[in-house]
Amino acid sequence: MTEGVPPRVDADLVDETSPDRVDETCRASARAWNDFRLLPRRRRAALLRDIADALQDARHEIVPLAHAETALPVPRLDGEMDRTVQQARFFADVVEDGGYLEATIDHGGQGTPELRKMLLPVGPVAVFAGGNFPLAFSVFGGDTASAVAAGCTVVVKAHPDHPRTAAATLAAVRRGLRDLDPGVVAMVSGFAAGAELVRHPLIRGAGFTGSLGGGRALFDLASSRPTPIPFFAEMSSVNPVVVTELAASRRGASLGALLGQAIVGSVGQLCTKPGLVFLPRAAGGAVLVAGIRDAMTAAGPQRMLSGPIAARFAEGLDGWRGGVRFEVDGVLDADTAAPSLAAVSIADLRPSLTHEVFGPAAIIVWYDALDQVTDAIEALGGQLTVSLHFEPEDRTALTALVHTATRQAGRVLAAGVPTGVRVGWATTHGGPYPATTAAGTTSVGAAAIARWLRPVTWQDAPEWMLPDELRDEPEAPLPRRVDGHLSPRS
Amino acid sequence: MTEGVPPRVDADLVDETSPDRVDETCRASARAWNDFRLLPRRRRAALLRDIADALQDARHEIVPLAHAETALPVPRLDGEMDRTVQQARFFADVVEDGGYLEATIDHGGQGTPELRKMLLPVGPVAVFAGGNFPLAFSVFGGDTASAVAAGCTVVVKAHPDHPRTAAATLAAVRRGLRDLDPGVVAMVSGFAAGAELVRHPLIRGAGFTGSLGGGRALFDLASSRPTPIPFFAEMSSVNPVVVTELAASRRGASLGALLGQAIVGSVGQLCTKPGLVFLPRAAGGAVLVAGIRDAMTAAGPQRMLSGPIAARFAEGLDGWRGGVRFEVDGVLDADTAAPSLAAVSIADLRPSLTHEVFGPAAIIVWYDALDQVTDAIEALGGQLTVSLHFEPEDRTALTALVHTATRQAGRVLAAGVPTGVRVGWATTHGGPYPATTAAGTTSVGAAAIARWLRPVTWQDAPEWMLPDELRDEPEAPLPRRVDGHLSPRS
Repeated sequence: MTEGVPPRVDADLVDETSPDRVDETCRASARAWNDFRLLPRRRRAALLRDIADALQDARHEIVPLAHAETALPVPRLDGEMDRTVQQARFFADVVEDGGYLEATIDHGGQGTPELRKMLLPVGPVAVFAGGNFPLAFSVFGGDTASAVAAGCTVVVKAHPDHPRTAAATLAAVRRGLRDLDPGVVAMVSGFAAGAELVRHPLIRGAGFTGSLGGGRALFDLASSRPTPIPFFAEMSSVNPVVVTELAASRRGASLGALLGQAIVGSVGQLCTKPGLVFLPRAAGGAVLVAGIRDAMTAAGPQRMLSGPIAARFAEGLDGWRGGVRFEVDGVLDADTAAPSLAAVSIADLRPSLTHEVFGPAAIIVWYDALDQVTDAIEALGGQLTVSLHFEPEDRTALTALVHTATRQAGRVLAAGVPTGVRVGWATTHGGPYPATTAAGTTSVGAAAIARWLRPVTWQDAPEWMLPDELRDEPEAPLPRRVDGHLSPRS
Repeated sequence: MTEGVPPRVDADLVDETSPDRVDETCRASARAWNDFRLLPRRRRAALLRDIADALQDARHEIVPLAHAETALPVPRLDGEMDRTVQQARFFADVVEDGGYLEATIDHGGQGTPELRKMLLPVGPVAVFAGGNFPLAFSVFGGDTASAVAAGCTVVVKAHPDHPRTAAATLAAVRRGLRDLDPGVVAMVSGFAAGAELVRHPLIRGAGFTGSLGGGRALFDLASSRPTPIPFFAEMSSVNPVVVTELAASRRGASLGALLGQAIVGSVGQLCTKPGLVFLPRAAGGAVLVAGIRDAMTAAGPQRMLSGPIAARFAEGLDGWRGGVRFEVDGVLDADTAAPSLAAVSIADLRPSLTHEVFGPAAIIVWYDALDQVTDAIEALGGQLTVSLHFEPEDRTALTALVHTATRQAGRVLAAGVPTGVRVGWATTHGGPYPATTAAGTTSVGAAAIARWLRPVTWQDAPEWMLPDELRDEPEAPLPRRVDGHLSPRS
């Protein structure tokens, strides 16, 4: 498929970092961490804001590079840059708030020791940049920003599809670091370097956004080290959407347009793209499909992130053929993908149709009763999202499905589409395997910082030995639990 | 070593649960979880108190069984039963408080979705009972109590050394369950059954207390499943203790007695037993060693948990020989262990001396300067505890050592001995590998509940779809963060 496509990325730019250089980079990261871990919270918050400013200042350089390397439209990349900058500032707020530290004091007395606990950064960590978000999940995306917020130093494994974007972003981050050790955020490139990074004894954890195959292979490496480290991979999800008969009959046209746009937005290259759409075999369902079809057709063919990504998309569609009917059957040309929509009866929803196909494609699954949908979603693996579109009268009929949705997914939507992920205090971007390798975590939002922390308790320690956060009168107040009672700011 | 020792455990009692029966037990656990996960917080707290009462009522039956099966003294087991009962009640308080749920609301508006997040139980989990705590880390020990508190059902893998204690404890727990499904806490036995349990598709996580070899093997099984699950193993620690020259010279005799008792208490069969004691090569050091020696000699030979445990203890001591001088060289007889104390210069502290030897033994490490101690502790693997005994004047000299201690251990003591673990809000019983497989967690204290939870966010959901904890006016108030602001009770 990809023969004859001129490469967007100059191969000379994709340095394969040598094993020696990976080792040096990790050692430099560990040296930088020795001081960085002790930086007061207020200074770390200021650093995050400085980096946000530096990224903002460099956006006119970075966004065009990202556009050239990924073919993503400039408005989309502008939005992604806004998100990246805001995310860094948001983590500054999280750090200043301090609640994430879980500072806790149990006073002692009469033979009972005094305990003072808080979370500390785990050490230097690795971050694998995602291919589909050259800014927001890349060099200073959510993983790096949350790790730096936690007080960890980061070695980024750059994504091979956007090396110049990565280099320009790193340069901006380094300007934001000012007089801090540049080793606080470093970068390596190349497939082998990624494996070296995960195996390096000084690396204490890793974050990843990408495919199931890549994520699982690196998770296995991380878990089989002599000293295992946590590997937080966000990988694969088909993000089922369910529309009830009532919702389809009352809002079929508007829901169809909404869903169609969600399937083709960013050329379907989003981990939260709806991949399975459960529709009632009823009049409203047909209207809804027409709406999806129109929105997808209107989007037309678009260039994907790279030739190999387009080739994998074509393979994914080939895997669907036989047993499904194509409503919209896109023709693929080099690295350009046309929207594709298949349809199948729920009785024929075989497992091979329930794997993520990365690109502007989805499968309509026709159902007769919501029980069938509950069973089908129960049989899927873990999901980032499950979306439910219903009317107030559906409440009773939805009980089982809602329970299944909360068991299977990290986010349950009762309106809208899952493709937007709000960065907030209450965000969960995660879910049971294979959505992620760590169902207990989120890779977006305030709680993403928790992945890079570990608890330490000081027992009967004098004031001077304690971090500011655990002293009787901390200079920078924060939420604390003292003798079981939580105070928002003490 | 163990020939001719009459077995304490009737082999007929140690049923090897068949693979079919393990499967049935896991299925029953999953069925029980379907309802149990929805039990309101107040009812789960009441359940924990009912189980505590049932254990208390059965203590006169359970403690003698534990004594017969483990040879641990009755007063020690009485204390352990108190701890087990109090721990169940403590988790009832944690559940009622509700802060562990991290309930968080970000209101929406103007195109921004509303997010409401809290933690939900992961599902049925496995708990591997520890050998050295037949009550507090066994059928309803900290792992099971915290998992039930989280809303998970539990399948316990009983420890082979105390099957009758386990059966009696399970019976008491079941009485505490009253009309709830008995599948909420179930039990299997046997080595193969343990492996089946970790591999079972319905099991979503596991807790373990035991040896490095066993813990790592099961961690590897859990990580290599088609759907990996977290395996929280608490395994191996030598719990270094450091005494400064000033502390040794001023408090040598009393510190020696304290440390000696900590080494031999519970026949040294504690994961927090001090195994390496760093002493200054100065006058105070000699006084201190005399104190340790006297306390250890006074304890005399004691029966260990089992013949195999005693045999492994003897092997551990054999591994020390050559290059170390024995201050107290215990003679071993069948399943009885005599206290053993070796001494070595810090220059000769080879890696083979830094592994845990489970039993009443420790190594004195003579140092000349605290820098040497810092380097030595830096070179050890992760630890459950590091203990520092010093005087106020030592503050400056201790800076590097304190930093190293907080990097290497889950708990840093500035007084006392690490063998007691207070169950509280601020407890950390954990540490980097090989102390545990999950440095970000604790297996004791309020935060132990976090291992069994995963976040879910509801987006734009109607009130009826939300758990009570996320509604505008929850029936059972709890700490929540709303639009970034934490309220202790809302």
